[in-house]
Amino acid sequence: MPAPHDAQTFALGDLVLQRGATLRGAHLAYRTWGRLNGDGSNAILVPTWYSSWHDQNEWMIGAGKALDPDVHFIVSPNMLGNGLSSSPSNTPQPYARGRFPSVTFVDQVEAQHALLTSLGVTSLALVTGSSMGAAQTYQWAVSHPEMVRRAAPIVGASKTSEHNQVFLKSLAQAMRTDAAFAGGEYLPDAPPLAGIRAFARIYAGWGLSQAFYWQREYLEMGFSSLEDFVVGFWEGYFLDGRDPNNLLTMLWTWQHGDVGLTPGFDGDTEAALRSIRCPVLAMPCRTDLYFPPEDEQWASQFIAQGEVRTIDSVYGHFAGLGLHAPDNEVIDTNLKELLSR
Amino acid sequence: MPAPHDAQTFALGDLVLQRGATLRGAHLAYRTWGRLNGDGSNAILVPTWYSSWHDQNEWMIGAGKALDPDVHFIVSPNMLGNGLSSSPSNTPQPYARGRFPSVTFVDQVEAQHALLTSLGVTSLALVTGSSMGAAQTYQWAVSHPEMVRRAAPIVGASKTSEHNQVFLKSLAQAMRTDAAFAGGEYLPDAPPLAGIRAFARIYAGWGLSQAFYWQREYLEMGFSSLEDFVVGFWEGYFLDGRDPNNLLTMLWTWQHGDVGLTPGFDGDTEAALRSIRCPVLAMPCRTDLYFPPEDEQWASQFIAQGEVRTIDSVYGHFAGLGLHAPDNEVIDTNLKELLSR
Repeated sequence: MPAPHDAQTFALGDLVLQRGATLRGAHLAYRTWGRLNGDGSNAILVPTWYSSWHDQNEWMIGAGKALDPDVHFIVSPNMLGNGLSSSPSNTPQPYARGRFPSVTFVDQVEAQHALLTSLGVTSLALVTGSSMGAAQTYQWAVSHPEMVRRAAPIVGASKTSEHNQVFLKSLAQAMRTDAAFAGGEYLPDAPPLAGIRAFARIYAGWGLSQAFYWQREYLEMGFSSLEDFVVGFWEGYFLDGRDPNNLLTMLWTWQHGDVGLTPGFDGDTEAALRSIRCPVLAMPCRTDLYFPPEDEQWASQFIAQGEVRTIDSVYGHFAGLGLHAPDNEVIDTNLKELLSR
Repeated sequence: MPAPHDAQTFALGDLVLQRGATLRGAHLAYRTWGRLNGDGSNAILVPTWYSSWHDQNEWMIGAGKALDPDVHFIVSPNMLGNGLSSSPSNTPQPYARGRFPSVTFVDQVEAQHALLTSLGVTSLALVTGSSMGAAQTYQWAVSHPEMVRRAAPIVGASKTSEHNQVFLKSLAQAMRTDAAFAGGEYLPDAPPLAGIRAFARIYAGWGLSQAFYWQREYLEMGFSSLEDFVVGFWEGYFLDGRDPNNLLTMLWTWQHGDVGLTPGFDGDTEAALRSIRCPVLAMPCRTDLYFPPEDEQWASQFIAQGEVRTIDSVYGHFAGLGLHAPDNEVIDTNLKELLSR
């Protein structure tokens, strides 16, 4: 899965970030499907998930699907840090590589807001995304309640739980343990390969469920053994153009996810959730090991039009990432119902 | 928690291991409580769990508890590889450090069988242990059905599931990613500290449940924040005399756990479980992330007198390691009932 080449670029200018740094000459890479209607109201926003590019949202989009380019104007902006939008791997000094500044979900949403405004979008029929895309979905509903008409966070949360943070801390520590990481100043042709492999192997245990492995679902996916899956799928994915500094930048964003940190809420997550006006249909997966349904049930109680529909799948977190057709069906059906309201 | 100094030593002589190596001049470190009765029938065996020493079984033992030294002769043998019994850290060359041979659960049980025979034990009223101690419990019931009258595996399994193996592979890879590990040939005064910290941080996510962290149970344990718990408890534990080669040796044993690999069963785990004659009371924890109750329910169906009683706790895997008084109570009550049969 090499990085896609069909992105358009939106110049953000000098982007002042929530934690204080200014990213000069920043940009967002994005792709659109369909056409904006006359009053700019048929737009759907689909942010990206951790380590992914916009093309990894394409499973949600198509004629006859909930996200239908014949009906909607669909925009998928790449997260800052993902290697296509401004990132450690493509930013000049002095903010290059290991010195790239900390980016919050608030920053992601403000950058995307500038993009949508430039495109003529006045309101959003739906914001939906998986994992870190779900966190951006919640952030949109809190940051811009005047624009978001519906929200559907999939396998993600409004606040990154402490258990989830422990998982993320272990990933970061493993990457940094490789001396070749060199504080993020490794050369592009000498990335910390052992650190990337350790990172991938940790992820392998968390990304899918106990039952997924018990049932050897990886055989269905075309892998010949457990080790073949760990190397072929997990190491292969993270070795294929996923820059370690980019990975750690996005990890920081994820680890510090909390809608309570939106300006005006002073760290009060419950108050931020209570401020959401639109219907929020959350879709966690029953067997997700780091975004368990309990996180979404907790958040939903503070949202006036909040609802949780759990995906019953052994694919764990990956039930929300488009890998497994039956789970994709469930999500599509739920999104259609939400859009019909 | 420094290593205890109250162990006795049993000389195993030249120990021929299942995978072929001979560990010359091997020994077991062990401790006993109580006295063996006249016909050698009041013995209870309590093997150790991963990275632990025999003193970490003491929470199960005491007057009025199921394991009562006034009634029973209790023997706790340290696992080969744990630093007290023959291990990478205490074995001379050429099998020292990173070159220590692979040890299976069958090897562990045969070494313990030699010890018990030398002590005059003719049968075992009970074998019980937690985690890898549970694997040894199953192995005893398969290897020596003529000796084991009752078995109580706690938060462990008869076969290490593939998901569990993925977790273990990630731990090993993180340790080896530290260049200071040097293929296991690090000097005793220069252990791979970054690798140990990464190892500990991975473990932190798996050892306890999502709900444990959500409820911040670590505050009850005397830690002041999430990071204080990760450093103070997890890094502290693995930095305190747990030798990395020892850790990887025990990890190999764990990863290759499967009673079907007992000689005579040709890899047939179900047949090995069917050969168990004694009552087996398994106690998994509802929220255990790497030994989920499903593993035990699967095994139990093949054991004539098999039963599963799930511990309902948010302590995850650690519900079986003596850290949480209410869970200890549940285990003690179950063991008393089993011993009364």
